[in-house]
Amino acid sequence: MPRPLTARALLVIDLSATLLFAVEGASEAAGAHLDLLGVLIVAFATALGGGVVRDLLIGATPPGAIRDWRYPATAFAGGLLVVAFLPLVRRLPAPLLVGVDAAALSLFAVTGVRKALQHGISPFMAVLMGAITGSGGGVIRDLLLVRVPAVLRTDVYAAAALLGGAVLVLTQRAGLGAALASFAGGGACFALRLVSVWRHWNLPRAG
Amino acid sequence: MPRPLTARALLVIDLSATLLFAVEGASEAAGAHLDLLGVLIVAFATALGGGVVRDLLIGATPPGAIRDWRYPATAFAGGLLVVAFLPLVRRLPAPLLVGVDAAALSLFAVTGVRKALQHGISPFMAVLMGAITGSGGGVIRDLLLVRVPAVLRTDVYAAAALLGGAVLVLTQRAGLGAALASFAGGGACFALRLVSVWRHWNLPRAG
Amino acid sequence: MPRPLTARALLVIDLSATLLFAVEGASEAAGAHLDLLGVLIVAFATALGGGVVRDLLIGATPPGAIRDWRYPATAFAGGLLVVAFLPLVRRLPAPLLVGVDAAALSLFAVTGVRKALQHGISPFMAVLMGAITGSGGGVIRDLLLVRVPAVLRTDVYAAAALLGGAVLVLTQRAGLGAALASFAGGGACFALRLVSVWRHWNLPRAG
Repeated sequence: MPRPLTARALLVIDLSATLLFAVEGASEAAGAHLDLLGVLIVAFATALGGGVVRDLLIGATPPGAIRDWRYPATAFAGGLLVVAFLPLVRRLPAPLLVGVDAAALSLFAVTGVRKALQHGISPFMAVLMGAITGSGGGVIRDLLLVRVPAVLRTDVYAAAALLGGAVLVLTQRAGLGAALASFAGGGACFALRLVSVWRHWNLPRAG
Repeated sequence: MPRPLTARALLVIDLSATLLFAVEGASEAAGAHLDLLGVLIVAFATALGGGVVRDLLIGATPPGAIRDWRYPATAFAGGLLVVAFLPLVRRLPAPLLVGVDAAALSLFAVTGVRKALQHGISPFMAVLMGAITGSGGGVIRDLLLVRVPAVLRTDVYAAAALLGGAVLVLTQRAGLGAALASFAGGGACFALRLVSVWRHWNLPRAG
Repeated sequence: MPRPLTARALLVIDLSATLLFAVEGASEAAGAHLDLLGVLIVAFATALGGGVVRDLLIGATPPGAIRDWRYPATAFAGGLLVVAFLPLVRRLPAPLLVGVDAAALSLFAVTGVRKALQHGISPFMAVLMGAITGSGGGVIRDLLLVRVPAVLRTDVYAAAALLGGAVLVLTQRAGLGAALASFAGGGACFALRLVSVWRHWNLPRAG
């Protein structure tokens, strides 16, 4: 019998994704001539920005990242890790980083959809909220570094989060339990993201 | 006897402006080397961003654009239209585009002021909220494309929305019904915007 | 016996900082080829942006800057002052501007922490909210002008706000009254900011 995803499980998933995105945000920022506090700020914004925007949009205020100290503490830890072990971080093989990022994207896409549904948002908008949770932090990071957000230009990224969210919503509607549907959705997002990097897929350009 | 503007009329006006701004945002984005999803995201941000920011600022959460599926569906339709008929969109004569944009600006300025007043915001701030509704989406679009927002640099744009909002508030205070005052405000915004483009008016530069 | 900080005192402090930041934002904007309305918009965003973001994050909606007409009126006055006396503003000696800015930063750091605590935010997050109140407006200003936010790159700025907030929280916990703890926190922020400019301190770079 499928069991519902507990609040505890959602929190663990969310904090894991927060840590991964903080590490990634800090790594990006460290290459952009920022000072130490700037790196930490970008790590915070990358890790927490997507969830904060989602919470503001679905009316869950104050956002979880403000109400629950474990979110900023986790983002802080991720940023500090990078600052402390930067030479090591720089030698991490690219495929590992892609995998870590794809995992964080998938986890956030799932928790984003779930939290939106819990707040009475319609399934269609909940899927969008999942994509915002997963890719919003990266958009804020790119804006702070004055770059056109990568998600607008290249790769199959937000599209993977949208697919994952849609799979979650549809499999749950088809009768799957919340936990299984979440696994299915997260797995679909993760798989599409990895395959698209491996095969150098891009969405077609406009114009 | 002047009749109040019905909620239905406001919705129709709002959705029309949403469609127009989505078309315009997507057209801008299609010239900026984005992929297809990027174009749709910019269309969404242009069409819905101003209203979402207004709703967050006046405390109407979740924002209408999240609560009511017709807003994202309309923005989506506008974006898709551009993607599907891009060569056609590119041959549209410039004056038509200016007129379409001025119409959307005027409609959003009116609905922005009205919604702010309904939420107990003071008339002075409600006029600002109308300008934010009308020009906020364009600011977000320009930030995503890493440009100094056009509204800060050139043209009589936000100023037209401010004029329209002020006319609405003042004529209503002078005893005009809500519908007539809205027509007067929207008309003033539309007229000032068109005349300023036609006569190449700009606000004076600072410095 | 230490007396609590009255709401009136907080408002006066907040409006003073709003005026100072509006002057500063408008001065920056006047050097960036904007038109007059653009300068006023940047003045608004610099002066009110940090507080608005803080209020959205702590769930105090509508934000004070929207609810209370004195905030926008003060920001407007600051922007107009710069536009009217721009040649004069440009001849102001740099040390004066640095002092004015440090004062505004310190005032906002204090009122940001206090308001967050009043809304039940934990002390750790309240300190972050103080830093966001003090430096958020400048980040929005830099984003509008398409620059990497200064706070990420250079100087001891957000760090001074963080120190001030921490001093406030810790001295109050140690038994100091709210007014005295606020003075201590604001003073620490102001002193660290001024000394760091005078001694050309920067935070270490990452990477």
